[in-house]
Amino acid sequence: MPITDPQGLSATLQLAFELIRRPSVTPDDLGCQALMIERLERLGFQIERLPFGDVENFWATHGHHGPVLAFAGHTDVVPSGPHVHWETPPFEPCIDDEGMLRGRGSADMKGSLAAMITAVERFVSAHPDHHGRIAFLITSDEEGPAVDGTRAVVEHLRERNERLDYCIVGEPSSTDALGDVIKNGRRGSLGGVLHVRGIQGHVAYPHLARNPIHQALPALDALVREHWDSGNDFFPATSFQISNLRAGTGATNVIPGDVEVVFNFRFSTEVTHEQLRSRTEAILDAHGLEYQLDWTLNGEPFLTAEGELVEAALHGVEAVLGRQPQLSTSGGTSDGRFIATLGSQVVELGPRNATIHQANECVRAADLDDLSQVYEAILAKLFVNGTAQP
Amino acid sequence: MPITDPQGLSATLQLAFELIRRPSVTPDDLGCQALMIERLERLGFQIERLPFGDVENFWATHGHHGPVLAFAGHTDVVPSGPHVHWETPPFEPCIDDEGMLRGRGSADMKGSLAAMITAVERFVSAHPDHHGRIAFLITSDEEGPAVDGTRAVVEHLRERNERLDYCIVGEPSSTDALGDVIKNGRRGSLGGVLHVRGIQGHVAYPHLARNPIHQALPALDALVREHWDSGNDFFPATSFQISNLRAGTGATNVIPGDVEVVFNFRFSTEVTHEQLRSRTEAILDAHGLEYQLDWTLNGEPFLTAEGELVEAALHGVEAVLGRQPQLSTSGGTSDGRFIATLGSQVVELGPRNATIHQANECVRAADLDDLSQVYEAILAKLFVNGTAQP
Repeated sequence: MPITDPQGLSATLQLAFELIRRPSVTPDDLGCQALMIERLERLGFQIERLPFGDVENFWATHGHHGPVLAFAGHTDVVPSGPHVHWETPPFEPCIDDEGMLRGRGSADMKGSLAAMITAVERFVSAHPDHHGRIAFLITSDEEGPAVDGTRAVVEHLRERNERLDYCIVGEPSSTDALGDVIKNGRRGSLGGVLHVRGIQGHVAYPHLARNPIHQALPALDALVREHWDSGNDFFPATSFQISNLRAGTGATNVIPGDVEVVFNFRFSTEVTHEQLRSRTEAILDAHGLEYQLDWTLNGEPFLTAEGELVEAALHGVEAVLGRQPQLSTSGGTSDGRFIATLGSQVVELGPRNATIHQANECVRAADLDDLSQVYEAILAKLFVNGTAQP
Repeated sequence: MPITDPQGLSATLQLAFELIRRPSVTPDDLGCQALMIERLERLGFQIERLPFGDVENFWATHGHHGPVLAFAGHTDVVPSGPHVHWETPPFEPCIDDEGMLRGRGSADMKGSLAAMITAVERFVSAHPDHHGRIAFLITSDEEGPAVDGTRAVVEHLRERNERLDYCIVGEPSSTDALGDVIKNGRRGSLGGVLHVRGIQGHVAYPHLARNPIHQALPALDALVREHWDSGNDFFPATSFQISNLRAGTGATNVIPGDVEVVFNFRFSTEVTHEQLRSRTEAILDAHGLEYQLDWTLNGEPFLTAEGELVEAALHGVEAVLGRQPQLSTSGGTSDGRFIATLGSQVVELGPRNATIHQANECVRAADLDDLSQVYEAILAKLFVNGTAQP
């Protein structure tokens, strides 16, 4: 029989149940942050609510001196999709017969939020006068536009020169087993929308037209074949992908006047987005195209190659789980891209990501208890054993 | 003041007025053929109505032996579009102060139909026992699907081994002055719809996907660069044009699973459509694409390089207008492609085409009287002066 009553479960799982019960689809928070704030206030945290637009955020700190370690995360979840695709209702958490905690947000990332809170509760109770400061940076818009969420909070912290030495983002980084992968960076993401202009005409009179598809083909092929970089020890080579192509009036006898090409770079720290832009434009220019090109920088790459935080995270996983994590920068973007701009060491460490954004999202219930132990071990390594910089 | 009352105008212009008044948008005939049939029956023509589907057609002949010269044309017109774009109502013919007969179909090709009828009326009255046979092949679907029109009539004539030696299609062939261009052939038209398949995926994980856009680019570029032929004395080189491209989900972070490419060949008599198909597929195969390709043969190329009909047409224009026509195979397709399959000599000879398919379609009124004289001169050359083959 599935467990639907959290009474008798661990503190971490009880809090996870309470958070999952709130259908806080982006940008709604629906009281999740209030739950967290209540627990943190009880521990003596200073709370600063930082709403921007329709997004709720908060910043909380405990301790008075030394380096700052922030736990970062989001209370919003992606929509559940049709409930008919779920074996159990998405916002009614339960633990099934296989020991899986089921519900939207269980893996991404309410389970991590619960584990952070209980880890800090145990740590602060055991070390009320701990070295360093512990912080929380929580938003209700990570899955949406992500403009009024972590990005806005980071700008606020930057303006008042707030210190943020270390940041653990609770994103589900694990692949096959809890802690097998720690993300210590992410590639950058640069998007382009290219319009190549020609001269429209009738296919029977091509000499009176200029086919922009024909003109664009060799230039696009050159962009695909370009060796942008070779990556490095931490990043794969920069990749270029065309995601969308549109040309033509629908009529089969008309040469179109315009082609639209949408493309995306995922780039390493070996190139800058300025270099990618100018190299792209040089290739288009070399092909004599008449074009317009609009760029969107979705995120700069960031990397925490080494340092006290990576050491502490590796140590924490090994001490609790007996497992040696792999450091990785693969995957999409995360709020880590904003936090890293403060000069912080950033790692992402959370549960397995196999079911995130899908129907029947779930996480091994015991993994959340273990994750809370890992977070506590990292705190201990940095702030009790004193590996944190003074 | 524009002339809106045809009384007092030439017989050709009077008939043109009557035809234009009928808003016979494809495939409607709205009594146009009945008007022509009434005139031809009065001359002693044998009439055969050949309706197919919702298309009205007729075949009419006069004379009992010898070679057959058919006048071919269509009573349907393209839609007028919004009347607000017309200076005079599209289905209320008038002759304006510059001497232009205005109205939908005036140039394409009700003016030619009127000129054919009056030319034959004068010729048959003057030569009731003329050599050869005169025929009319008229349809109400040239501007539409063109399946149940001339194509179906031609198949009907082929089945009963009807003789068709010469055919004058009344399409508006002239460019700057009446008779300056006679079309003695048309290029073929072969269409293709290509689907290149890849494997959909996330742009952040290109190693798990296969981008069909990237795969298609060099193959399409090779098709664009291919030298299909050099044309010949009558045809320009075969041309390949991509008219439509579609790929992508609309999302900027998804590698699509499929690209659709719509293209068209306009081809000379130096290649066959079978050769174009196999050469295209060889290029796609050489690039290792996984694809589906659906072909549509819109029309085979046809050519009347020389012969009695071309001679008679050149002679007719020169005798009536003092002008030396240029022979050309340029432009789109016409019903001539179907008639030529009977082994007929085919020319297209009609008024200026500057305004066809546009708002304010018009034709110089005097040109229709001249065109009628040219058609009569061709009849005389073939069937009185006896240049037609026995």
